[in-house]
Amino acid sequence: METSRAEAFSDGVFAIAITLLILTIEPPSRGEHLGHELLRLWPAYLAYAVSFLTVGIMWTNHHTIFRHFARVDRPLLLLNILLLMLIAFVPFPTRVAAEFIRSGDNRREAALLYGTTMTVTAILFFSVWIYGSRHLLRPDADPREVSGITRSYLPGTPMYGTATLIAFASPIASLIIYGAIAF
Amino acid sequence: METSRAEAFSDGVFAIAITLLILTIEPPSRGEHLGHELLRLWPAYLAYAVSFLTVGIMWTNHHTIFRHFARVDRPLLLLNILLLMLIAFVPFPTRVAAEFIRSGDNRREAALLYGTTMTVTAILFFSVWIYGSRHLLRPDADPREVSGITRSYLPGTPMYGTATLIAFASPIASLIIYGAIAF
Amino acid sequence: METSRAEAFSDGVFAIAITLLILTIEPPSRGEHLGHELLRLWPAYLAYAVSFLTVGIMWTNHHTIFRHFARVDRPLLLLNILLLMLIAFVPFPTRVAAEFIRSGDNRREAALLYGTTMTVTAILFFSVWIYGSRHLLRPDADPREVSGITRSYLPGTPMYGTATLIAFASPIASLIIYGAIAF
Amino acid sequence: METSRAEAFSDGVFAIAITLLILTIEPPSRGEHLGHELLRLWPAYLAYAVSFLTVGIMWTNHHTIFRHFARVDRPLLLLNILLLMLIAFVPFPTRVAAEFIRSGDNRREAALLYGTTMTVTAILFFSVWIYGSRHLLRPDADPREVSGITRSYLPGTPMYGTATLIAFASPIASLIIYGAIAF
Repeated sequence: METSRAEAFSDGVFAIAITLLILTIEPPSRGEHLGHELLRLWPAYLAYAVSFLTVGIMWTNHHTIFRHFARVDRPLLLLNILLLMLIAFVPFPTRVAAEFIRSGDNRREAALLYGTTMTVTAILFFSVWIYGSRHLLRPDADPREVSGITRSYLPGTPMYGTATLIAFASPIASLIIYGAIAF
Repeated sequence: METSRAEAFSDGVFAIAITLLILTIEPPSRGEHLGHELLRLWPAYLAYAVSFLTVGIMWTNHHTIFRHFARVDRPLLLLNILLLMLIAFVPFPTRVAAEFIRSGDNRREAALLYGTTMTVTAILFFSVWIYGSRHLLRPDADPREVSGITRSYLPGTPMYGTATLIAFASPIASLIIYGAIAF
Repeated sequence: METSRAEAFSDGVFAIAITLLILTIEPPSRGEHLGHELLRLWPAYLAYAVSFLTVGIMWTNHHTIFRHFARVDRPLLLLNILLLMLIAFVPFPTRVAAEFIRSGDNRREAALLYGTTMTVTAILFFSVWIYGSRHLLRPDADPREVSGITRSYLPGTPMYGTATLIAFASPIASLIIYGAIAF
Repeated sequence: METSRAEAFSDGVFAIAITLLILTIEPPSRGEHLGHELLRLWPAYLAYAVSFLTVGIMWTNHHTIFRHFARVDRPLLLLNILLLMLIAFVPFPTRVAAEFIRSGDNRREAALLYGTTMTVTAILFFSVWIYGSRHLLRPDADPREVSGITRSYLPGTPMYGTATLIAFASPIASLIIYGAIAF
C-alpha cells in the first residue's frame, strides 16, 4: 500500500484529536463570578496548550518519518493504528489532569496518567520509526539522515519517562516539562 | 463519479468516528480516589480499544475494496452512506457497553447492542463489496484477487454474529472476541 | 480561487457535521432496564438516520454542482460558508427533535425547528447553484445538463417547506417525509 | 517542508473547530415551553454565527497567504501551530459568551474573553504573514500584491482590539462588531 493513504488517515486523526482538546475545558457554571472562575481554570488552559503542542509536534514528526518510507505493510499499519489510538486518547488524560490539578486532589495520580500516556505514545512513535526504517525505507533514503532521525528520537521515551517520574515530586512541574519537550 | 471523492469523504467519516470514541470514556468525578476510579474504568478502555481497532481495520479494508472499483454509481453511493451511518454510530454502543459492563447491570443487553451494530456493519461492508465487485470492477482487476477478497470477507458476518450470540453467555468474552477478530 | 480548496473545506465540514450527529443520541442512564430504554430511544435513531441521509445526499449534490464551476469568487465563497453554517447547525435541531418527540411534549415546535433548518439549507443550496451556474460556469459545461440540474433542484425548497408545514398536523410524519426526500 | 502538508493539516483544524461550534448551543431541557426556550437562545445563535463567519473568513485568508509561500520552515510551523491552537480554542469563548449574555450576568467578562481570544488570533495571523512574507516568499510573488495583503491585514488587530474595548460599554454591540468585521 502507498504511504499517502495512511498519511491522509493519520492526518485526519491528528487534526481531530488536537481540535477535540477544547472539549477538555469545562465552561464555568452560570451565577458565579466569571472573572475569577476564568482565572481559576488556568490548569485547563495549561493542559490544553501542552497537549496541543505535543500532538502538533508529533504530527510534524510523523510526516517527517513517513516521507522516508517507500510503502507501508501490515505490521507498520498496525503499529500506526496503535499510535493513533494513543494520540486519540490524549484528550482523556488532558481533561483528568486539568480537573484534578485545579481541585488540588489526586494531582499526582492525574499527572501519572498523563505522563504514562505520553510515554507509551513516545514508545509507539519510536517503534513505527524503527520498524519502518529497517524494513520499508525508500531506496534513495540518505543513511546519514536516517541515523540522524533515529538519534534525535532516541531521547524522547526516556525524557517522557523522567517527566512522568517527576510527577511524584511535583505534578505541575511535570506538566510544564512536557510542554518544554514539545518546544 | 470517480471513486476518489467517495473515498475522501469516507476517510473523513472513518477518521472522525474513530477519534470521537474518546468521548465515550467519562472522566471520574472530583473528590473521589482517582487511582481506584481510573482502574475501575477498565471496561471503557477495553471498549475504546476494541472499537478503535475494529473501525481502523474496516478503514484499511474499505480502502482495499475501493481500489478495485473503476467508478461509483448511485446504488454503491447509497450503500456506502448506509455503511458510514453505521460506522459513525459505533461510539454509541461503545459508550453503552463501557458504562453497563462497568456498573454490572444489563451487561447482556449492552453487549447485544454492540454486537448487533458490528454485525449490521459487517453485512453492509460485505454488500458494498459484492455490489461493487459485480458491477463496477476495473477492467484490469485480477479475478483471482477479487474472489480472494470475497472469500476473506465471507466469514466476517457469521463471526460477528456468533460473537454477538456469545454475549448471552458472557458479555465480556463477547467484547474480547470482537477485538480478536479485528486483529 | 480554484474550486478544489473550497471543495476540500466543504468536504471536511460535511464529514464532521454528519459524524457529530451521533452525539445527539444520549445514552440511557445506569440502573434502568436497558432493553426498554434502548427501544424508547427510537426517535433519536430515526432523527439520526434522517439527518445522516439528508446531509449525505447534500454532500453528493454539492460535489455534483461544484464540478460545473470553473472557479469560485468571493460571493460564492460567502454563500458556501453560509450553507456550511447551516449544515454544521443540523445536529442541534436533530437533537431537539429526538428529545422532544421522545418525551411527547412540544413535538410540533421541535419539528418546526427541524423543518425550518432544512428549508433554509435547501434555499442556500439552491442559491449556491443559481449564483455559480450564472457567473462561474466552466466554458465546456453542457447547457442541457446545467438546466437539468436547475430543474432537479427546483422542487427541493417547496418540498422541504411543505414537509415543515405538515409538522403542524403530525411531527413524526414530517420527519419521515424528510427521510423520503433524501432517498 | 512543502506548504501543502501544513495547509492540509490547517484545513483540518479549521474545518473541525468550525463544526464543533455547534456543541456551544445547549439544547433546552425537556418539560419547558420549547418555543420560548428556542427564542431565548438567541445569544447562542448569534455567537455561533459570528464565530462561524470569523473562522470561515480566517480560513479563506489562511489559504490566500500560504499560496504566496514557497515552503514552510520550523519557525513558521510553530507560529502556525500557535495560530491553530487559538482557532481550536474559539468554541470555548463562544460558549461562555452565549451562556453569560443569555443569563445577563457577567456579560462584560464574557465579551472580554471573546474579544481577547479574537485579538490574539488576529495578532498570530498577522505574525504568520509577516514572518512568511519576509523569509519564505515564492520567487515569482508579485511585490505589489504582497504589500497589498500586508496593508489589508494591518487594521485587523486594532479593529479586534477596539471591538474588545467596546465590550466595556456594550458586550452585545461588541459581538455584533466582530460579525461585521468578518463580513
